[in-house]
Amino acid sequence: MLAEIITIGDEILIGQIVDTNSAYISKELNKVGVKVYQITSVQDDRTHILQAFEDAKKHADLVIVTGGLGPTKDDITKQTFCDFFEDVLVEDQNVIENVKQLFKKYQLNKPLPANFQQAMVPSKATVLNNLHGTAPGMWMEKDEVVFVSLPGVPYEMKHLLQGEVLPRVVKRFNRPFIYHKTLLTYGLGESAIAERIADWENDLPENIKLAYLPSLGKVRLRLSSSGNNESVLQENIDSRMEVLSEMLSDIAIGYEDETSIVGRIAHILNQKNQTLSLAESCSGGAIAEQITSEAGASSFFLGSIVPYKTELKTHILGVPSSLIEEYTVVSIEVAESMAANCCKLFNTDFAIATTGIAGPTKGDAVDEVGTVCIAIASPRGIVSEKFSFGNDRFRVIKKTINKAFEMLLKEISKN
Amino acid sequence: MLAEIITIGDEILIGQIVDTNSAYISKELNKVGVKVYQITSVQDDRTHILQAFEDAKKHADLVIVTGGLGPTKDDITKQTFCDFFEDVLVEDQNVIENVKQLFKKYQLNKPLPANFQQAMVPSKATVLNNLHGTAPGMWMEKDEVVFVSLPGVPYEMKHLLQGEVLPRVVKRFNRPFIYHKTLLTYGLGESAIAERIADWENDLPENIKLAYLPSLGKVRLRLSSSGNNESVLQENIDSRMEVLSEMLSDIAIGYEDETSIVGRIAHILNQKNQTLSLAESCSGGAIAEQITSEAGASSFFLGSIVPYKTELKTHILGVPSSLIEEYTVVSIEVAESMAANCCKLFNTDFAIATTGIAGPTKGDAVDEVGTVCIAIASPRGIVSEKFSFGNDRFRVIKKTINKAFEMLLKEISKN
Repeated sequence: MLAEIITIGDEILIGQIVDTNSAYISKELNKVGVKVYQITSVQDDRTHILQAFEDAKKHADLVIVTGGLGPTKDDITKQTFCDFFEDVLVEDQNVIENVKQLFKKYQLNKPLPANFQQAMVPSKATVLNNLHGTAPGMWMEKDEVVFVSLPGVPYEMKHLLQGEVLPRVVKRFNRPFIYHKTLLTYGLGESAIAERIADWENDLPENIKLAYLPSLGKVRLRLSSSGNNESVLQENIDSRMEVLSEMLSDIAIGYEDETSIVGRIAHILNQKNQTLSLAESCSGGAIAEQITSEAGASSFFLGSIVPYKTELKTHILGVPSSLIEEYTVVSIEVAESMAANCCKLFNTDFAIATTGIAGPTKGDAVDEVGTVCIAIASPRGIVSEKFSFGNDRFRVIKKTINKAFEMLLKEISKN
Repeated sequence: MLAEIITIGDEILIGQIVDTNSAYISKELNKVGVKVYQITSVQDDRTHILQAFEDAKKHADLVIVTGGLGPTKDDITKQTFCDFFEDVLVEDQNVIENVKQLFKKYQLNKPLPANFQQAMVPSKATVLNNLHGTAPGMWMEKDEVVFVSLPGVPYEMKHLLQGEVLPRVVKRFNRPFIYHKTLLTYGLGESAIAERIADWENDLPENIKLAYLPSLGKVRLRLSSSGNNESVLQENIDSRMEVLSEMLSDIAIGYEDETSIVGRIAHILNQKNQTLSLAESCSGGAIAEQITSEAGASSFFLGSIVPYKTELKTHILGVPSSLIEEYTVVSIEVAESMAANCCKLFNTDFAIATTGIAGPTKGDAVDEVGTVCIAIASPRGIVSEKFSFGNDRFRVIKKTINKAFEMLLKEISKN
C-alpha cells in the first residue's frame, strides 16, 4: 500500500512559499499504515499536472493532491481532474449551501459569483464537504487508484484530511502497521553520538532502520519499522529505544511526539509547582514565543521582559549600570544579574536571561557577532555560560533558544 | 533552460521534517533565470533515487540534489551518484584538510573516522568545498545534464549554492530573465480583491501571469513573466504593478522582497525617529520575536513585556485591578490601559497591546476562545478593536500578529 503526494502551485516552484502540507499529510498517512513513496511539486500547468498524475498512478494506490482549488483564475486543478477522469463539471447544491453558511457564520458580505464557482465539481467525484472554506475536496477513482483533491490552505486541508479522507482510506485499503520512535538529544554532535552507539547500531536487525536528524544544538535519533503485527513491532522498537535512551541518558530528554524540550520543562515545573520567567535580550522574545505556542503554558510561565535597549536592563530589570559599565552588556555578570532580578520582578522560582550580539553587525559591542551569555536563576543560585554561536543572525537566535532550554532543564531536574 | 530539485531523505517522506531547501533553491535559481520544472522528494533508497535521477534527466538541464551526505550509515547519496555515473569513490585531500580546519576552528575534539569518510568522493566529480560543514558538494555531468549534490543542512546548502553552484550555473548555461513582483496586502479577502481588480486582471497580456496567495489576514498578489529582454520585462511588470498598487492603496503595504510589514514599520519609525514597545499577553512574545528576527530592530524597538499572568498586568504594567474586575482581562478597556502604560514604562512613542484567549480552552474567561483585543497607543491617543479569531491556537496567534501590525502601520502612517 503506497501513497504519493502531489502539491500544485507555481508559488512552490518559484520558492515563494514552503510546502508544509506534504509533511503533515505524510505523517498522518504513516499513522494509519500508509507509506508515502514520493512527494512531487508541479506547476499550475495542465500538461504537467496530467503527467504527474500518470506517473503517480504507476506506483501508488492513493494519490493525494493539494492546491489549485481557489476561486481565482490561476487555479486549474478541478478542470484538470475532469480531463484526467474524462468528466465534466456540474453544480453541487451542498457546496452552494456550505458557501452560504460560511458567509453567514463569519458575518461576511454576500458571497460573490466567484465564491459560488466553488460549487462546480466533477460529476463522478465524491464531494468532501469543507467546513472551513469554500473549496470542497474530491475523491475519485481510476483503474483501482484513488485520487483525492484537497485545498492548499493548510487549515482547510488538515480538517478535510482528518474528517473525510483518513476514515475513507482506512475503510478502503488493507494496510500494515508503520511504527516510528524518535529520541530527542541536546548537546552532542551526530558523529560523536554515532561513535558512542556504534555497537548498538550494528546490532540492529535488517527491518529496523536508524536515522540521525541533526539541527543547531540538538540531534534526533529515529527508529522505523513496518509489519503486520502491531504489538511485536512496537515491542521490538520500544525495547531497543529503551537501551539507547539509557546509553544516552546524559543528553536525551525524551521521545518526540510524546514530549518536546518545552513539554519536558512544563511537566517538571508543573509537578513541582514551580514557575518560570524570562529576561530575553538577544533572543528578543523567541523563547517566550516558543513556550507560549504550546497550550497550557500559563500554568508555569508567568511572563517575560525583552529589555532590548540597554538602559531598560537597568530601568525595568534593575541591573546596576555600574555592572554594565564594568563588564559590558554582553557578559556573564550582566546575564546573571538579569536572571536574578527577573526572578524577583516576576516572583518566579526560575528565570532564563539572555544577552548577546545576534548580528549582522556588532554595533558598539566589544565582543564578536555571535557572542551570547545565558544565565539560569534557580532557588539554588545562578549558573551561566558564554558562547560563540557564529555570525548568522537566524542561527545565533536558534542556538540561543536551544541552549537556554538545555541549561534550564538541567537546573530544574536537580532534585 | 529547466531545473529539477530532488530532496532525499526518509525524514521528509514520513513527515518528520518540512523540506525548506527546495523553496530556497527555487527562489535563487529564478533570480538567475533558471525555471524549476519540478521538485521531487524521495526516500533513502538506492533504486528510487536512481529512478528519480533518470526521470529528472528527461526534462531538466540541471538537477540539484540535496540530502543523504551525512557521516552516518543512513546516508547513501554519494554511493548512488557513483552508481548513476558508473564511478568509484576516491579520497580527496582537500576535503581531509577542510575537515581538520573545521574541527580546529570550532575547537572540537579530534575528528572521528566517520568525519574523514566525508573525503571519499566520486572520481569524476568536481568537488565543491564546504566551508561550514564536513560534507562537500559535488558537480557531475551526464549526457549534457548537470547533476549537483549538496548537503541537506540548510545553512551549509545555502553557502554552497551561493558560493559554488550559482556562479557555475551562470557560466555554463544560457538563461532568459525571469521576473516576479509581489504586492503585499492586509485586511481584505482574495475574492473581494479579485472582484475589485477584475478589469485590470482581464487586461493582462498572455505572457504575464497573476497569482493570489492568501494567508491569515493577508493576501499576496504576484505578477510573473520571463523573456530575453530584461528591461522590457521589468518595465511591463512594474508599470502594471504600479496601477494595481494604486487601485489597492488602502490595503497594500509594499512589495515583497523590498519590504515586509515589519520592514515598512521600521522604515517609517526610523524616518520619524520614533520608537515602539509591546505588551503582549495572548501573543506571548510572538510579535517581539517577529520584530527582532529582522536585523536592525534595535533602532526603533526598545522592548517588550509579556504579562502572561493576570496579576502582572497590574504589578508590572500598572493596569488598575479595578479595570480588570469591571471589564474582565480580555477587554478593550484593559488592552487600552496596557498600551498606554506600556508607552510609559518603556518611554516609547507607540505601543501595541494584546490580550485574548488563544485556546484551546477558555479557562475561567467570560469570552469564547479566539476572542482577542488589540490596542495601539500613539502620541495621538489610543485606538483599539475586539476580534473573534476562531478556535485554533496557532491561527489565533498568527492572526493577532498580522492584525496588530496592520493596526500599528495605520497609526504610524498618520503624519
